[in-house]
Amino acid sequence: MALRDSLLLYVITARGDRNEVEKVREALEGGATSIQLRAKKVPAREAYLAGKEMRKLARDYGALFFVDDRIDLALALDADGVQLGPEDIPIEVAREIAPNLLIGASVYSLEEAIEAERKGADYLGAGAVFPTPTKPEARVLGLEGLREIVKRVKIPVVAIGGITGDNAREVMATGADGIAVISAVMGADDVKKAARELRSIITGE
Amino acid sequence: MALRDSLLLYVITARGDRNEVEKVREALEGGATSIQLRAKKVPAREAYLAGKEMRKLARDYGALFFVDDRIDLALALDADGVQLGPEDIPIEVAREIAPNLLIGASVYSLEEAIEAERKGADYLGAGAVFPTPTKPEARVLGLEGLREIVKRVKIPVVAIGGITGDNAREVMATGADGIAVISAVMGADDVKKAARELRSIITGE
Repeated sequence: MALRDSLLLYVITARGDRNEVEKVREALEGGATSIQLRAKKVPAREAYLAGKEMRKLARDYGALFFVDDRIDLALALDADGVQLGPEDIPIEVAREIAPNLLIGASVYSLEEAIEAERKGADYLGAGAVFPTPTKPEARVLGLEGLREIVKRVKIPVVAIGGITGDNAREVMATGADGIAVISAVMGADDVKKAARELRSIITGE
Repeated sequence: MALRDSLLLYVITARGDRNEVEKVREALEGGATSIQLRAKKVPAREAYLAGKEMRKLARDYGALFFVDDRIDLALALDADGVQLGPEDIPIEVAREIAPNLLIGASVYSLEEAIEAERKGADYLGAGAVFPTPTKPEARVLGLEGLREIVKRVKIPVVAIGGITGDNAREVMATGADGIAVISAVMGADDVKKAARELRSIITGE
């Protein structure tokens, strides 16, 4: 499966601890095509132990597995890639120390998007499309800003930030290759159902 | 210089940001034999930028350069090694993803010390010898606990936790190969003087 196809429904963990493993399984069951371990709030050991199980689940379901920020965890977990933002280790340095990982760049403007593509990112996580409680400080791109990025870069673009079942269709209409969510799936009462509904909206089925 | 000799006066950063680079230079000027970048409170990019300068300084002064916790930063900065505690990526996994790095293990008991040596650690950071405001939750080994560890392992042992000029001599008398400090050097009004005084106490000159 091409990278682009695996970015359709990209689900990110809220805490990245072992309590989330079961939710990750439900998200995959519901149709998530990529899982990202984001574990800013737990020690690396806890993220490693949770990540081992998530890595295995992603493989079982034919999904890709990414790690946010920590290239060492991505390597330790044999992840498919790592997601790096402006406050993380620079893309070109990451490429040197981990040549086999896919690198996703978190970008918050057209300028950052173009720069990240130039530096060799394999895909972009572009946002925030809408305001989001998960990252209240993030700049808001809006649908127009997202559309402009999609138009100007050649690498796949995953839209992120405040995306729900109510707006996912218009997000995909910008030409984005997929959507990334945290709370809309991991925070749902029924994770599998939330993933399935989002997946069916973005694939237009 | 043997690893053991480089562990004599091991200075750890308090924040790991660029404001500390000058203090690291002063610590080296005063006789620090190893520098550890500990940067739990700043984003990886900031630690990377600060670490690049610290790495260079350490090399200029013939000191070793370590990174706490983040193996990716250690690789990105071409550090000599990484320091890993019970909440970090496991030693045996670190060895796999970074075979060329020295691995120091933070241990808080004799059992952990023996286990870390068995798992292949190159040296131990053993503590807390005394209660310390930097890690108020750390168990206190005391001088007796430290002496026991030094006696039971073959790899070098750096003592850490609440060590100052007032107690450094008795710490070294346990047979420890060196002392690690944060506040006693990085928090001093005159960093170079504090390092020089500690260095002269522990070398008995």
